[in-house]
Amino acid sequence: MPDLSERAARNLEMVREKKPLIHNITNFVVMNYTANALLAMGASPVMAHAHNEVEEMVSLAGALVINIGTLTDEWVNAMIAAGKKATERGIPIILDPVGSGATSLRTNSAKRIIDETRISVIRGNASEILSLRHEESTTKGVDAIHSVDEAADAAKTLAQELHTTLAITGPTDLITDGERVVRVYNGHRLMGYVTGTGCTATVTIGAFLTVDKDPVTAAATALAFFGLAGEEAARSASAPGSYMIAMLDALYTITPEQLKNGSRLAG
Amino acid sequence: MPDLSERAARNLEMVREKKPLIHNITNFVVMNYTANALLAMGASPVMAHAHNEVEEMVSLAGALVINIGTLTDEWVNAMIAAGKKATERGIPIILDPVGSGATSLRTNSAKRIIDETRISVIRGNASEILSLRHEESTTKGVDAIHSVDEAADAAKTLAQELHTTLAITGPTDLITDGERVVRVYNGHRLMGYVTGTGCTATVTIGAFLTVDKDPVTAAATALAFFGLAGEEAARSASAPGSYMIAMLDALYTITPEQLKNGSRLAG
Amino acid sequence: MPDLSERAARNLEMVREKKPLIHNITNFVVMNYTANALLAMGASPVMAHAHNEVEEMVSLAGALVINIGTLTDEWVNAMIAAGKKATERGIPIILDPVGSGATSLRTNSAKRIIDETRISVIRGNASEILSLRHEESTTKGVDAIHSVDEAADAAKTLAQELHTTLAITGPTDLITDGERVVRVYNGHRLMGYVTGTGCTATVTIGAFLTVDKDPVTAAATALAFFGLAGEEAARSASAPGSYMIAMLDALYTITPEQLKNGSRLAG
Repeated sequence: MPDLSERAARNLEMVREKKPLIHNITNFVVMNYTANALLAMGASPVMAHAHNEVEEMVSLAGALVINIGTLTDEWVNAMIAAGKKATERGIPIILDPVGSGATSLRTNSAKRIIDETRISVIRGNASEILSLRHEESTTKGVDAIHSVDEAADAAKTLAQELHTTLAITGPTDLITDGERVVRVYNGHRLMGYVTGTGCTATVTIGAFLTVDKDPVTAAATALAFFGLAGEEAARSASAPGSYMIAMLDALYTITPEQLKNGSRLAG
Repeated sequence: MPDLSERAARNLEMVREKKPLIHNITNFVVMNYTANALLAMGASPVMAHAHNEVEEMVSLAGALVINIGTLTDEWVNAMIAAGKKATERGIPIILDPVGSGATSLRTNSAKRIIDETRISVIRGNASEILSLRHEESTTKGVDAIHSVDEAADAAKTLAQELHTTLAITGPTDLITDGERVVRVYNGHRLMGYVTGTGCTATVTIGAFLTVDKDPVTAAATALAFFGLAGEEAARSASAPGSYMIAMLDALYTITPEQLKNGSRLAG
Repeated sequence: MPDLSERAARNLEMVREKKPLIHNITNFVVMNYTANALLAMGASPVMAHAHNEVEEMVSLAGALVINIGTLTDEWVNAMIAAGKKATERGIPIILDPVGSGATSLRTNSAKRIIDETRISVIRGNASEILSLRHEESTTKGVDAIHSVDEAADAAKTLAQELHTTLAITGPTDLITDGERVVRVYNGHRLMGYVTGTGCTATVTIGAFLTVDKDPVTAAATALAFFGLAGEEAARSASAPGSYMIAMLDALYTITPEQLKNGSRLAG
């Protein structure tokens, strides 16, 4: 694998240069924050969910972000229509299966989206990701995983079964396409006190996918950048309100050079 | 009634310990802010409004917040489905009848929700709350109330008629179940310059109801905590933008001890 | 034309005195921010989109803001219902045709709203505004415009064809009713890094229209005020997160006197 820190720096630089349009069909809670995060890092967000415009809109975009955080059947249908068009056009899709495993609507909708479109990266926490297993899956469940090695093995198996790249975020992030495994150590505990930090990690991956065709390196470098923004924010803020604002500032101020030196990735 | 300041401190401590899941079916304007407020105070928010998942979602929750701020008939139907399930399971429900009295859709929807579910607490301003009177109500209208004593009497009558606890917020908050009356004096004028402070007071009551079975003390101590956050925020911020961020910070930093000393409640 | 700087100061003073209710049917991304901006400047926001309440709600309002940023057919129908009622009642309407020109749903919906209601001001960027031309329009397209004079001529022609006032925002804002042309030079480059600054400029015009019956002076003075807030914010913030908060603060703290001295308008 190439030097990941250098690749992170290059990807960030290219996002700022290209200002890619990211089409989001996402949840109501985080729309404002993820739009601001995309603008701050140098990308260009658009939110559109009407069934009769998503195909036209996604055709203008560099990547499609699908996030099921406040889903209804109607929205899922629009997500799939946009996803099919993106698949047809070779536009990368990233899925955030918010709450998959918590209700059957969420689990089933996430699985439908995975079945009917070609997803480049799925970003979620461990329980969301593991809820995506098929019935005949041989992947271990959360309760059967007792070590980081077992977690990596389960993730690799599931990535192979789903034919995609998984980005499992937590204190340490794990990215795998079923073959390669990359871990990202950047981040800060206060990120857990801001709504939509997971969703914002997802859109960051979306932006990086427009400049890096390899889903594993795109996801890993995006998460390193996002985690570093979380670390930077903690230098000036120690409570969630000012912290979420400082994170937006950091997404704007971190330079490719800083990212190269600050990213903590292991391939 | 128990010492309310001590109870406030205990309730805050227990929310932070239990990290209760609060299911919100709420308006688009405040979703992000109320989610962040719940996280900041130590609770865990989820927003879900699809008719075919609200019953499953609310079953996982410690409390259900219903807020009609940007309602449609479809959303109200989901609110009632979730509310019925919560009623069946004994999960406390708190209603925020945003704009009730302004349009007939809002007034009628609020009344339907009250009729078809068992609401623990209704939080609103005086005109919203008084708009909930039945036709045959003996409660005085806003125009007929000329003193704080008359206001308390009207609130008590209405609480009895609606079989619930009312939390009427304003410069002074008044909480009553028809028998007991508690007043809360915490708060700050800048709260009126931030959208959704009322809605955020409501979700705070939702969080406190998961650790305090008495709706009167849960609501009163929650409003003391929320009002104290408003006072704390005013120490570092003097304009609405920075103030709304400082409020989120205060919800995170205020300790049970500070709340015990800073709450201004009269039973 | 009257002295525009004095008029700006007077309009701001009157908004703060009257606290006009602004009814918004707007997009999910900016609802929170525009509501907070309206509160900060001294107005009173309400968001309501249900088909069966918008006519009642708009009748209570001083102005109606229609913003198609996350439109669906259902929402557009509600916008038109509200717009017809506002037209009937003589309540000023301001339209923000977000993304018009990008998809046919957006372009067609914007044109339908213009045809079926009486719009006082349309606020957008140059490409959004020029997408509103009728088929038989004689207005030049974006590609055919090579100077500021040509831009002003195109805007004047289009304003005449659409029978409304156009407020075209960019590094310099241009406002015209087809006869008069006003330019506004206030603003700051960081405004482009915050989602919804265009939409917030729009609601500011909405607030100013409640106190100034002349759409040209209302729009121009509102944009001077909003641009000055962007300049003020840049004194204390240099990255998008803190900048968007500082803008809300500035909308609250800027005095009529400061606006008189700081507005840069040319009639």
